[in-house]
Amino acid sequence: MDFSIDDRTQELVARYRAFIDESLLPLEPIFLQQGVVPLEAALAEVREEARKRGLWGPNYPVEEGGQGLDLVTHGLVSEVLGRSPLGHYSVGVNAPDAGNAELMHLHGSPKQREEWMSPLMRGDIRTCFGMTERDNSGANPLMMETRATLEKDQWVINGSKWFTTGADGAALCIVMAVTDPEAPPHKRASLLLVPANTPGYIVERKTPIMGHEGHGLFSHAEIAFRDCKVPADSLLGERGGGFALAQARLGPGRIHHCMRWLGICQRALEMMMERANQRAITPDGRPLGDSDLIRSWVAECAAEIQAARLLVLHTAWRIVRAGARAARNDVSMIKYYVADVLQRVLDRALQVHGGLGMTDYTVLAFYYREERAARIYDGPDEVHKLSVARRLLSGREG
Amino acid sequence: MDFSIDDRTQELVARYRAFIDESLLPLEPIFLQQGVVPLEAALAEVREEARKRGLWGPNYPVEEGGQGLDLVTHGLVSEVLGRSPLGHYSVGVNAPDAGNAELMHLHGSPKQREEWMSPLMRGDIRTCFGMTERDNSGANPLMMETRATLEKDQWVINGSKWFTTGADGAALCIVMAVTDPEAPPHKRASLLLVPANTPGYIVERKTPIMGHEGHGLFSHAEIAFRDCKVPADSLLGERGGGFALAQARLGPGRIHHCMRWLGICQRALEMMMERANQRAITPDGRPLGDSDLIRSWVAECAAEIQAARLLVLHTAWRIVRAGARAARNDVSMIKYYVADVLQRVLDRALQVHGGLGMTDYTVLAFYYREERAARIYDGPDEVHKLSVARRLLSGREG
Amino acid sequence: MDFSIDDRTQELVARYRAFIDESLLPLEPIFLQQGVVPLEAALAEVREEARKRGLWGPNYPVEEGGQGLDLVTHGLVSEVLGRSPLGHYSVGVNAPDAGNAELMHLHGSPKQREEWMSPLMRGDIRTCFGMTERDNSGANPLMMETRATLEKDQWVINGSKWFTTGADGAALCIVMAVTDPEAPPHKRASLLLVPANTPGYIVERKTPIMGHEGHGLFSHAEIAFRDCKVPADSLLGERGGGFALAQARLGPGRIHHCMRWLGICQRALEMMMERANQRAITPDGRPLGDSDLIRSWVAECAAEIQAARLLVLHTAWRIVRAGARAARNDVSMIKYYVADVLQRVLDRALQVHGGLGMTDYTVLAFYYREERAARIYDGPDEVHKLSVARRLLSGREG
Amino acid sequence: MDFSIDDRTQELVARYRAFIDESLLPLEPIFLQQGVVPLEAALAEVREEARKRGLWGPNYPVEEGGQGLDLVTHGLVSEVLGRSPLGHYSVGVNAPDAGNAELMHLHGSPKQREEWMSPLMRGDIRTCFGMTERDNSGANPLMMETRATLEKDQWVINGSKWFTTGADGAALCIVMAVTDPEAPPHKRASLLLVPANTPGYIVERKTPIMGHEGHGLFSHAEIAFRDCKVPADSLLGERGGGFALAQARLGPGRIHHCMRWLGICQRALEMMMERANQRAITPDGRPLGDSDLIRSWVAECAAEIQAARLLVLHTAWRIVRAGARAARNDVSMIKYYVADVLQRVLDRALQVHGGLGMTDYTVLAFYYREERAARIYDGPDEVHKLSVARRLLSGREG
Repeated sequence: MDFSIDDRTQELVARYRAFIDESLLPLEPIFLQQGVVPLEAALAEVREEARKRGLWGPNYPVEEGGQGLDLVTHGLVSEVLGRSPLGHYSVGVNAPDAGNAELMHLHGSPKQREEWMSPLMRGDIRTCFGMTERDNSGANPLMMETRATLEKDQWVINGSKWFTTGADGAALCIVMAVTDPEAPPHKRASLLLVPANTPGYIVERKTPIMGHEGHGLFSHAEIAFRDCKVPADSLLGERGGGFALAQARLGPGRIHHCMRWLGICQRALEMMMERANQRAITPDGRPLGDSDLIRSWVAECAAEIQAARLLVLHTAWRIVRAGARAARNDVSMIKYYVADVLQRVLDRALQVHGGLGMTDYTVLAFYYREERAARIYDGPDEVHKLSVARRLLSGREG
Repeated sequence: MDFSIDDRTQELVARYRAFIDESLLPLEPIFLQQGVVPLEAALAEVREEARKRGLWGPNYPVEEGGQGLDLVTHGLVSEVLGRSPLGHYSVGVNAPDAGNAELMHLHGSPKQREEWMSPLMRGDIRTCFGMTERDNSGANPLMMETRATLEKDQWVINGSKWFTTGADGAALCIVMAVTDPEAPPHKRASLLLVPANTPGYIVERKTPIMGHEGHGLFSHAEIAFRDCKVPADSLLGERGGGFALAQARLGPGRIHHCMRWLGICQRALEMMMERANQRAITPDGRPLGDSDLIRSWVAECAAEIQAARLLVLHTAWRIVRAGARAARNDVSMIKYYVADVLQRVLDRALQVHGGLGMTDYTVLAFYYREERAARIYDGPDEVHKLSVARRLLSGREG
Repeated sequence: MDFSIDDRTQELVARYRAFIDESLLPLEPIFLQQGVVPLEAALAEVREEARKRGLWGPNYPVEEGGQGLDLVTHGLVSEVLGRSPLGHYSVGVNAPDAGNAELMHLHGSPKQREEWMSPLMRGDIRTCFGMTERDNSGANPLMMETRATLEKDQWVINGSKWFTTGADGAALCIVMAVTDPEAPPHKRASLLLVPANTPGYIVERKTPIMGHEGHGLFSHAEIAFRDCKVPADSLLGERGGGFALAQARLGPGRIHHCMRWLGICQRALEMMMERANQRAITPDGRPLGDSDLIRSWVAECAAEIQAARLLVLHTAWRIVRAGARAARNDVSMIKYYVADVLQRVLDRALQVHGGLGMTDYTVLAFYYREERAARIYDGPDEVHKLSVARRLLSGREG
Repeated sequence: MDFSIDDRTQELVARYRAFIDESLLPLEPIFLQQGVVPLEAALAEVREEARKRGLWGPNYPVEEGGQGLDLVTHGLVSEVLGRSPLGHYSVGVNAPDAGNAELMHLHGSPKQREEWMSPLMRGDIRTCFGMTERDNSGANPLMMETRATLEKDQWVINGSKWFTTGADGAALCIVMAVTDPEAPPHKRASLLLVPANTPGYIVERKTPIMGHEGHGLFSHAEIAFRDCKVPADSLLGERGGGFALAQARLGPGRIHHCMRWLGICQRALEMMMERANQRAITPDGRPLGDSDLIRSWVAECAAEIQAARLLVLHTAWRIVRAGARAARNDVSMIKYYVADVLQRVLDRALQVHGGLGMTDYTVLAFYYREERAARIYDGPDEVHKLSVARRLLSGREG
């Protein structure tokens, strides 16, 4: 075992860190108090800066303009990007775009890759992924109601999705629909590419989340498909392969979330420590951090974050070595383990800030409310726990 | 010991419950998605309805138009009001108005009571309470910077406050300021009544909280006093009695919060159970509530809420019997105990709702983010724990 | 609602407290380091002293030599008795004897009461209760294997039991056996009185628990019934009523445990505070209790214990008012709620004592290991949680 | 980063695992129910078997008969040894002997190494380490009272120690005593080698722990030094270097404990899973493991153990790379992090076993009560947390 990180990687991570600190953090107050809209021009500049610094698309292929980093290195980079809510977007690898790009990279036809993947990886368009349905538990593939029927040489799609992140402004939606209702359960659905300007594709409304409808990438929408027609070659991957592809997409997607959460955790811990050092609780300036109750929180958070980090990096390493399927228990474990650490760290960091922590003068209140979803999206933690236990109890994984 | 609740009280609580269910809950979707502004007219009607039904001002004196309930009975009523974010406002006993009214009732001059308290208890005006300062730990009285100097027959106030709840639209601010900087620490400050139209009293800006500036009662503001002058008889209570009065105000204030939190808890539990019963997790309709993991959450929440309820009612009873000072350890205990239960119950209720819990289609996301402050306002839980322990360890309370 | 405790009751509780402090605590070091055997004579004297002071059998009927206390008052007394591992035994109301006595009081024939109940209530004999079977989950009545067959005018019992508390030295065993295997599940078993000198009744071995076999009341045994014959009139209560009676016995049994646990909690808290006050952690004598980490533990324990206490007393009050069946959800709730508080309080008290807490020089190590069973006996906490949730989710209890 | 474990190491670990399973686990029932005394002969054979299999002294130098494993590899081996309470003893690397051997290896004179270290590493003698004093907090070096005075060419030692593990039967005690009371605080104490047959060295009594005095290695003693005289060359390392050496000894000592705890955790998890699979909770054989409450426990334990394992191995790697001093925050973190995981895993494993978990028919009750000390020995977790936080808050470690 060798936990060392080579100099080249350390230097790369440091460059990402400098980029985030210099280019993004100064925009944060506006983002927190006014949202993403006033930042459109500034963010375009930041993304241009990322390209100039050779930081664009850390895990995208070099031939598509990315840096071609392996998953472990990307994990280290992604933690740094996670320090800002805008970090991943600033280098073009935000969810759901990064997952969609990867999916098309692995399973798209040459035409699909050229038409959609390349512009996406370059940052010219945004995309969304339509899977979750309001009245159907996402955990069970038999409960999907959206249908796509092949009529002549067109797929006719009907149904609705919700929690479609970034649908507002997306140029393309990758939608999962039942194409073969009589097939075995896990073979019933397929993925289809639906350009946003297709008639019958309707972004009905944004879903207000924690008091906000949000905008663009920072919003989630309900989408309706009403006799929405796309050409027969709009299938992404094989017919009936929808669940398999979604799983293949979600596995790495989950580890990307975990890597990002580590960045949030680390930043929250640093803010907690800075506050503990600076906030005087007596007239003669005795700092909050003199309290051994606060100190015990700092120590517990630091250990939990380090444990979470190693677990995530180990999982990335296993995916690289043995593939996502071999590492699926690891991926489920980090999903619930890191989400739990994330929530606890954010809660304590906010508490250490007192009233200030409730305000939008720090990033903590944003993370606190937005990332409550971490324990829900991409499969509730409870579902992942049951999957892990089922495999362990049946002796399939050790 | 007799835990029974007499029929008359039960009937009264049922009437409050019916009022909330019939008059307020239908307004909730608008409140959650658009805020309080579009509801102004509707809320005025609801308050009129409360008066008609004989429910106005449950703990206000009968001679001021209230119901004159004792604190224990008010606790039972307040839990019911707490089921809605608008509950206490609908009968005129929302924070900070209820506390301000009580303070003037106990310590105001006849003129102050007539000019400010009566209109407040009738619901004709709103008020605010200016105590917390941004750069000074509220836990320490020596760290207050706002000053009031008696010049001729006027108090000249300078300084600033933040987290002044409901300052937007308030007709009166009760402000704490250092009037006697050379007195013993706890005798340095006094309370002053400052009408909102006084020159030099400036509501500078609302503080954005969890992504929202809010409006009116549902907002917090930074206030500046710049050579703000009020007559010498603007003192509320005795000169130098500011801390004592603030403590006297906060004690009952805290129990009012706890009573309200119980209502939030109970409602969240009921929502959790309804969701568990209705959400199918298999195509044949097996409900989420069949899972014994969800069941264990339901059972734990139910027990914790009942324990919290008894603790709060017992504290109310002690205040009635022996006074707020004798019950101050009890009050501190329920502050941190109930806040902790509140957060755990809300977290689980939200989790059981999955993605829906993150949206503004239920009240859970509102309570989750807004009531994160429960562990902070009126003294962070940690400060209360230290106070309780200090008294217990010194043998002063048992 | 009236939480007051009348003077007479307070005085009575004080007398029990004095008795425990004066008569039992001095014996504790011997008990902890050498067990109960060397204390036999001393305990007999203590029990005599209890009789003299008018403290014997607090909840036993006056006509049987007890004090006839109602369940709420007994709850207050029982907390005081729980301060010592020998407390309940010292006044004759230890488990399982108290439950057995109560069962015979309610359901025994005059002959059974005279022959067994009266000597038991007087403290002349000890008894045991044979229900749990090693290979069968106690939570499911269908899984009991011990059989009793009526042959001529005798019941012939075959099977085995384990975790039969106090079998070592007991004069009588009340055993549950399947008498009607074809009846509906909950009507299959009956209770039978088996004198310990009956042929075929064999105390096979003590079960070593946490490193100890124990002795007498402080031991648990495996019992075998091999063609063990008792007269037909040995049935306690009705044929087929075994489960109903066991439930009726366990309900109050559980609340008795909870009351006792409160005493353990309170004593552990007091020890924790004393240690915090006395243990110097710097050469100049700064005590451990100066640490606000330790203080936060003290404050949390104090609040949890008070909450648990009110929950238990409220449950006792409900049983008195409405009967055990109406209060069964309350009883299940206190079972898991108080057991949880107990474990947390003991864990912290031990930690505050450092290495000393691991030794047998304080009672904490005894309680820590012995009362780990609190979350298991009389139904594991998880089973109670599921029962509570099932009733709540089905709307049967609120 | 490379998390792979080479084939040679994997094979070695497998051989240790086979040795433990074949040689030690069969002895466990006797150990649990009768203690170590009846096993003396059997254990001597097992140790001989370890030597034959080339497993003796995994981390001892090859020239002293050990296997010379580096700390990371030893970590993997040590987890396997930790599966049995007798594991480390069976290959001669139990505490406190392993730490004492290492200390003499690094700091002993040639004579000391030959006379004491070599026999110790060979398993011919046992030793003990006298540091903790009953009335003085071990966390503070100023609070040590044992004194050693150089008179002529002899050290005269006076004082007492407690919690001296394995003093019963030890041939040598390494004792820490104040030799230079006027020196700066951390330079006051020295280590001295005291043969057990030295007049004035008195093993006064064993300290009963969790109901047991224990024997030999499985016991802790109070030791008195009454004018105990040893030659001037009995100093281990430099005069005044006692604290530095003790720290140097405790650092690796702590990681050895953590490695062992991982073995306990992993075994407890496996037992929990086996029980979940085998225990029927319905007559038709539905296993406990069908419950998703139990499953969530399994999944949480598995993730926590894996996180703890990576944290420990990473710390071992850092010690190898950068030295114990550079890794001292890591060592403190694993101390409290792994101890916490240990306690939670043991608690759940015991609970899944129900009543059986309380008995000495499985190893769980032993680990539950004995390893409660894990959060206390080698520095209470709270002390380590404060150290970590102090360094982090001062920016000395990141």
